Amino acid sequence: MFLHRQELQHKVKPSKPDAVYARKLQEVLGGQYGEISVAMQYAFQAWNMHIPGKYRDMVFGIGAEEFGHVEMLATMIAQLLEKAPLGITSDAVQSDPTVAAVVGGTDIQHAIVAGAGARPVDSMGNPWQGSYITASGNLMADFHANANAEMQGRVQAVRLYHMTDDHGVRDLLKFLIARDTMHQNQWLAAIEDLKESGVESLPVPSNFPQSQEDTDVSYQYINFSDGGQAGDGRWASGPSIDGKGEFSYVAEPPAGVPMPPPTHPDSRFYGTTELPNVVEKVAGVIQDKLNRE
Amino acid sequence: MFLHRQELQHKVKPSKPDAVYARKLQEVLGGQYGEISVAMQYAFQAWNMHIPGKYRDMVFGIGAEEFGHVEMLATMIAQLLEKAPLGITSDAVQSDPTVAAVVGGTDIQHAIVAGAGARPVDSMGNPWQGSYITASGNLMADFHANANAEMQGRVQAVRLYHMTDDHGVRDLLKFLIARDTMHQNQWLAAIEDLKESGVESLPVPSNFPQSQEDTDVSYQYINFSDGGQAGDGRWASGPSIDGKGEFSYVAEPPAGVPMPPPTHPDSRFYGTTELPNVVEKVAGVIQDKLNRE
Amino acid sequence: MFLHRQELQHKVKPSKPDAVYARKLQEVLGGQYGEISVAMQYAFQAWNMHIPGKYRDMVFGIGAEEFGHVEMLATMIAQLLEKAPLGITSDAVQSDPTVAAVVGGTDIQHAIVAGAGARPVDSMGNPWQGSYITASGNLMADFHANANAEMQGRVQAVRLYHMTDDHGVRDLLKFLIARDTMHQNQWLAAIEDLKESGVESLPVPSNFPQSQEDTDVSYQYINFSDGGQAGDGRWASGPSIDGKGEFSYVAEPPAGVPMPPPTHPDSRFYGTTELPNVVEKVAGVIQDKLNRE
Amino acid sequence: MFLHRQELQHKVKPSKPDAVYARKLQEVLGGQYGEISVAMQYAFQAWNMHIPGKYRDMVFGIGAEEFGHVEMLATMIAQLLEKAPLGITSDAVQSDPTVAAVVGGTDIQHAIVAGAGARPVDSMGNPWQGSYITASGNLMADFHANANAEMQGRVQAVRLYHMTDDHGVRDLLKFLIARDTMHQNQWLAAIEDLKESGVESLPVPSNFPQSQEDTDVSYQYINFSDGGQAGDGRWASGPSIDGKGEFSYVAEPPAGVPMPPPTHPDSRFYGTTELPNVVEKVAGVIQDKLNRE
Amino acid sequence: MFLHRQELQHKVKPSKPDAVYARKLQEVLGGQYGEISVAMQYAFQAWNMHIPGKYRDMVFGIGAEEFGHVEMLATMIAQLLEKAPLGITSDAVQSDPTVAAVVGGTDIQHAIVAGAGARPVDSMGNPWQGSYITASGNLMADFHANANAEMQGRVQAVRLYHMTDDHGVRDLLKFLIARDTMHQNQWLAAIEDLKESGVESLPVPSNFPQSQEDTDVSYQYINFSDGGQAGDGRWASGPSIDGKGEFSYVAEPPAGVPMPPPTHPDSRFYGTTELPNVVEKVAGVIQDKLNRE
Amino acid sequence: MFLHRQELQHKVKPSKPDAVYARKLQEVLGGQYGEISVAMQYAFQAWNMHIPGKYRDMVFGIGAEEFGHVEMLATMIAQLLEKAPLGITSDAVQSDPTVAAVVGGTDIQHAIVAGAGARPVDSMGNPWQGSYITASGNLMADFHANANAEMQGRVQAVRLYHMTDDHGVRDLLKFLIARDTMHQNQWLAAIEDLKESGVESLPVPSNFPQSQEDTDVSYQYINFSDGGQAGDGRWASGPSIDGKGEFSYVAEPPAGVPMPPPTHPDSRFYGTTELPNVVEKVAGVIQDKLNRE
Repeated sequence: MFLHRQELQHKVKPSKPDAVYARKLQEVLGGQYGEISVAMQYAFQAWNMHIPGKYRDMVFGIGAEEFGHVEMLATMIAQLLEKAPLGITSDAVQSDPTVAAVVGGTDIQHAIVAGAGARPVDSMGNPWQGSYITASGNLMADFHANANAEMQGRVQAVRLYHMTDDHGVRDLLKFLIARDTMHQNQWLAAIEDLKESGVESLPVPSNFPQSQEDTDVSYQYINFSDGGQAGDGRWASGPSIDGKGEFSYVAEPPAGVPMPPPTHPDSRFYGTTELPNVVEKVAGVIQDKLNRE
Repeated sequence: MFLHRQELQHKVKPSKPDAVYARKLQEVLGGQYGEISVAMQYAFQAWNMHIPGKYRDMVFGIGAEEFGHVEMLATMIAQLLEKAPLGITSDAVQSDPTVAAVVGGTDIQHAIVAGAGARPVDSMGNPWQGSYITASGNLMADFHANANAEMQGRVQAVRLYHMTDDHGVRDLLKFLIARDTMHQNQWLAAIEDLKESGVESLPVPSNFPQSQEDTDVSYQYINFSDGGQAGDGRWASGPSIDGKGEFSYVAEPPAGVPMPPPTHPDSRFYGTTELPNVVEKVAGVIQDKLNRE
Repeated sequence: MFLHRQELQHKVKPSKPDAVYARKLQEVLGGQYGEISVAMQYAFQAWNMHIPGKYRDMVFGIGAEEFGHVEMLATMIAQLLEKAPLGITSDAVQSDPTVAAVVGGTDIQHAIVAGAGARPVDSMGNPWQGSYITASGNLMADFHANANAEMQGRVQAVRLYHMTDDHGVRDLLKFLIARDTMHQNQWLAAIEDLKESGVESLPVPSNFPQSQEDTDVSYQYINFSDGGQAGDGRWASGPSIDGKGEFSYVAEPPAGVPMPPPTHPDSRFYGTTELPNVVEKVAGVIQDKLNRE
Repeated sequence: MFLHRQELQHKVKPSKPDAVYARKLQEVLGGQYGEISVAMQYAFQAWNMHIPGKYRDMVFGIGAEEFGHVEMLATMIAQLLEKAPLGITSDAVQSDPTVAAVVGGTDIQHAIVAGAGARPVDSMGNPWQGSYITASGNLMADFHANANAEMQGRVQAVRLYHMTDDHGVRDLLKFLIARDTMHQNQWLAAIEDLKESGVESLPVPSNFPQSQEDTDVSYQYINFSDGGQAGDGRWASGPSIDGKGEFSYVAEPPAGVPMPPPTHPDSRFYGTTELPNVVEKVAGVIQDKLNRE
Repeated sequence: MFLHRQELQHKVKPSKPDAVYARKLQEVLGGQYGEISVAMQYAFQAWNMHIPGKYRDMVFGIGAEEFGHVEMLATMIAQLLEKAPLGITSDAVQSDPTVAAVVGGTDIQHAIVAGAGARPVDSMGNPWQGSYITASGNLMADFHANANAEMQGRVQAVRLYHMTDDHGVRDLLKFLIARDTMHQNQWLAAIEDLKESGVESLPVPSNFPQSQEDTDVSYQYINFSDGGQAGDGRWASGPSIDGKGEFSYVAEPPAGVPMPPPTHPDSRFYGTTELPNVVEKVAGVIQDKLNRE
Repeated sequence: MFLHRQELQHKVKPSKPDAVYARKLQEVLGGQYGEISVAMQYAFQAWNMHIPGKYRDMVFGIGAEEFGHVEMLATMIAQLLEKAPLGITSDAVQSDPTVAAVVGGTDIQHAIVAGAGARPVDSMGNPWQGSYITASGNLMADFHANANAEMQGRVQAVRLYHMTDDHGVRDLLKFLIARDTMHQNQWLAAIEDLKESGVESLPVPSNFPQSQEDTDVSYQYINFSDGGQAGDGRWASGPSIDGKGEFSYVAEPPAGVPMPPPTHPDSRFYGTTELPNVVEKVAGVIQDKLNRE
């Protein structure tokens, strides 16, 4: 159950209107790694989690925070748009290149569809979609997904920080960037916690018996490109990270096996085959069928 | 530049046809974490990489391998479909529940669109899409994305392993699961390598000066849910994972700030406002305009 | 700001596992008119609203409730899946038509991707997307969108009610159907309230001066099909609903105007035109250009 | 059956080229509430309708009109693009900010893909999609969807009206806005007609017996936010709009029920559980299986 | 302008209900190569066409016919669904495998969303989308797109023909298959007509001066795979089809050029570079900026 | 199996940065007819092909080449972005209209998401998707799809050629345009080869017995629009292209058949019907059911 409070976690007040920047902010609201993504990702992970206790409590806790971040960004975007030129006639005369340039760089749907409001889309106008999120039921895998999401999110937020001089906007970003710092650390800490508690280890999923996999290629780096330095990394020699094998380096792919012969599905799919008599055969099948009817 | 060799890295030969399973295999071919995703993700990371040398050589190397995995799965799917019932009349009589059940569980486009061939879609028929992949230019962030992708991929592969008894299919999965083992380890090793070489550290991106963020909330777990055990984890006390702070636990969100007053965009967006005289105002603007024309 | 409480508004406990029904329930969780849609729609409307007070308070209030409905459905789906056959070998043998039929009708990603958990998709596996929602800033328009959403939602819920005999599932649906009853009434009441308060009336948006539109066709039903009874309805005669005109009926479309002549864009777009000498012209342009370079 | 006549319902002739505005017009051609949406929505409603007579005749009639509106907008867009700068070298020199600004604000695919023609997309370039439309078979619900669509459409059209000074474009918009006025009224009239004829009433669907729903919450406004004025509206007291209940106001959500315990699906999904011995268990299952094979 | 007539081009009357087949028919209604696609494709080509006369008249003529085909298929689907089991309790008891199998193979949204009506989706439930269609303004290219669409459409229709024994359904398919025969021939004839009239020739677009391309590779087959028979085809020797060159065969790709060195974008994008001092540099930029503020 | 070589087929070196043009180039990288589309299309056709030998060898050969073209374009885009203004504060001051215009015309995700790298999207930011490609198993149909793809691709490439003066970019385009010339010719040659070898002919699929279609309309042009010149083309008289019939011209559609009566699905779908007693009927069904429980 979610309760809403008409407060924001942090002040949201731009110094001045900026419709182009409002569009850019949409990326961290409704983009692949925006706040809707992390809010929904954590919510689904919590709902699907198989363990009560600290992990689930924590995932519920951060999930609810992220819905509040969506709200802060939506509020900021609406304010950036409030008095900005959005193409209404008197402010959009195309002979003024400054205004035209601004209008050209805006999210056109901010004006036409939302009437100067925020939208559930990214900075290029792509609607947010459920396929952005990850909730597999395996916590080690999912916490890596979460760490990645917070890293990508912080990278995007600091890029956005450098795309404006507005003190009010930067003030909000400083807060969000700090939360991203925490949340990166939080998921990496949760990964450590999982390992320490023995609930899950590497490789993920750790309880699939490795005897069932082709262990001879489980720790081999095989180089399918011709870059010779691929063998110099940590991944090409020494003990594997999961502690269960030894890395080795294979400079180029060993000979493979021949492809199996092409398939020949039922002729009534009318794929092209080399058989010269396929027309006759199909016609025969149909004729037989007609005879039987 | 890519060169193609008409060989496969591993044998691809199912014991028997199985159209329902062919559909399931589409998930690891064309799903969010399927082989197309990792192949394209690594390719774009390599093309956008800013450093020559071991990292780029390695990413190119694994990327090309993954395109070959797409090929192996496509080949397997075509073979599973070759002689399977796909709804062609004589094999799809609905009064035979066994056949009807099988046909009902297939990817219908395998039959109608591809004529018993593989398709670039997931197990529910959603087309693969570019928004599945991640390539930010920041290697620490991206390598976490990659580790996650290989973990999700291995989780899905072992689930698929338990969804068939076909020895030929399992033989391929054993190979792919082993490669997922390697690739998980490979990305985690590459993360270690990045840290050791000092090229990138935590929090990502590590060279954004933390003095610019709201450091008072950089290491706070704030609990927005009412689950009391959220404070028991590794993320709620002790040194942070990035080594730059100390985790603390805030049992419930501190009072926020009031929301800013609602915005009032240009009245010609015809949003609803409380102003009683908005009609007159807008009419006035238009009338003025008409007078001027 | 959103706070989460680890409680549900209503009991969520199915009598027995049912993976096929779990898939069907996804429609009202993640479909076009599912709970994610209304939760997000009301949230964006609240964030973009230009009036403080009763309307905004109400929209915030219902929006938060709907996020809780998402949670109830996700919880129900996870429970329906918990012990249901999902294709794991021992329960999915295809020679048992009953099991095969069940497995064939499930959401395959419930098993492979989510490990028996809920997903942000509809009953056919399409991911939820931001383009489902509506938030225009005009309350009269948006409240009609909301009334429609609750009507479609209740229609779908009662259909789902008839698709199961499970008392636990029906118990939840009875609750959700009742809330849909309220929410339909709520939006229709809010429409009345808007009209009574004079904030907005018909046609929407009501403050655009109708003198600016082609008033001669503002209240005409023009019949572009040959069904003669189209003139018998309330829309074909009598006063218009907005009270500003009189309906009339036009039995077939009056003669239109000829299409304008086809366009001839810049020849360097290489569209096909009837001009015999286009090759020469384009070549000339390029040659000129080369000469100048 | 559809017959085409090479005429337009209204003149389509812009005063001058304007590629940026052409892009904006795409919203009402191919956007969520554009003409393709209403044309297709009405067509599917008619094809799926269960009643012959006035409703179906009317829906067919308006549907065919809307296909003609798609045509008018496509024609207008092609003309706006005909002589406009679209980035072809001589008109797109980036050192001329006026031209650069214009080109930057255009739909790039108008030039590269369509060669200065209209496209089935919205103003941000998102392709039109079938999930925009609604056709449930329940006329009361669907007519509300239609009323909403025409309201959103008219809101967007009047916004577009204020985004240009071109007399030719405005001339077309005046016509389309007037038709939106009619079509809003038409659907609201059809709703009245449905009620009067007793075919359908509120709540939708009206023939589901309300005794089957949780009637104690059927007319309760429950406030999940902390905005105190939510209780002041028409929806919080007095008779309900459907005439079947009395609104009441619940200031904050009553205590809910505890969440059910987390689920524990089959261990071969390799989700994370708290069980210490899950590895052993899964290994056991597999070993058993191997023994049996 | 489109006029609708309440008639169908051909009888639409299935012998018996069949919900699974109704789902399959969705492919040719709302799939990539379904009737919506060709109807919309021809409409946009006509609206964007630069030549009046026979080509445009023909494209308008066939486009309107295809909208009628959409209608025939929608009508057929609604009838196939009318009395079919769609999961309503009494017909969907899962312990009856025959019924369960049927229900499992249906489009679930046919029941829940459309109430036994047709939908604008393909056989796997993907909504139709604008990105399926092609209208470039170049008639030679577009007519090839059209020929392909009719070929794919006929392939799918004959596959569907073999997936049912229903005489009524087959009767409709016989008609549609015959129209596909005509339409394939029609576009191939139109291609001949274009060539004969000299309006457009090969390679497309034919009026781009070939002197501007790298003519040394304009007619070379270069083999990037190791299949030796690629040199045996019509494309590897002899005169080219456009009559402007001579095919040649290059057995393996010649040595390429080295990749350019990796890019080093502005350090404030925080991509990873090999520079050891990037932290200092970025910090310096920010510090400078702070000093200036 | 794919092997990667760190070389490019042709030099990729722009003369100067140009972020707006980088966005435009995305169309031929990740658009409907971009290089990802042809690479994936040819790969899936090869994997699904039923004939070993020259056709398959050729399709594999060209497929691998196209993956290299993706790489060349990605490399070019990264270089065009390397030193271009992308909105980082000091280069994006909005009061400088030139810079603002440039920034407004860029792909915003190039900056925020990719950090100045290429992305798998088209020029309007739509992610590449699997539904762009075609692989039916019927070679005649698919080779027409391929010819079309190469024609659309060359049309787009020559448009892009005219949108830049950069010698380095044009140098790459000259190469790609030449390859498009070859590939158009290649597929048209392969079509000839198919016909000559007798493997497939017209109409596609050629082995479906035409006796099974409604032959009386197989070669009729029926004019559903009122453009009189539609009868003047090659498609309206004379022998059909497939050599199996004679074209004829039907000036307007013959009378059709009446639509079948509307459907009346199970009343528990709660669609709207004219029956006055539907409420009672449904209530009765439910009551019966309750009695039985």
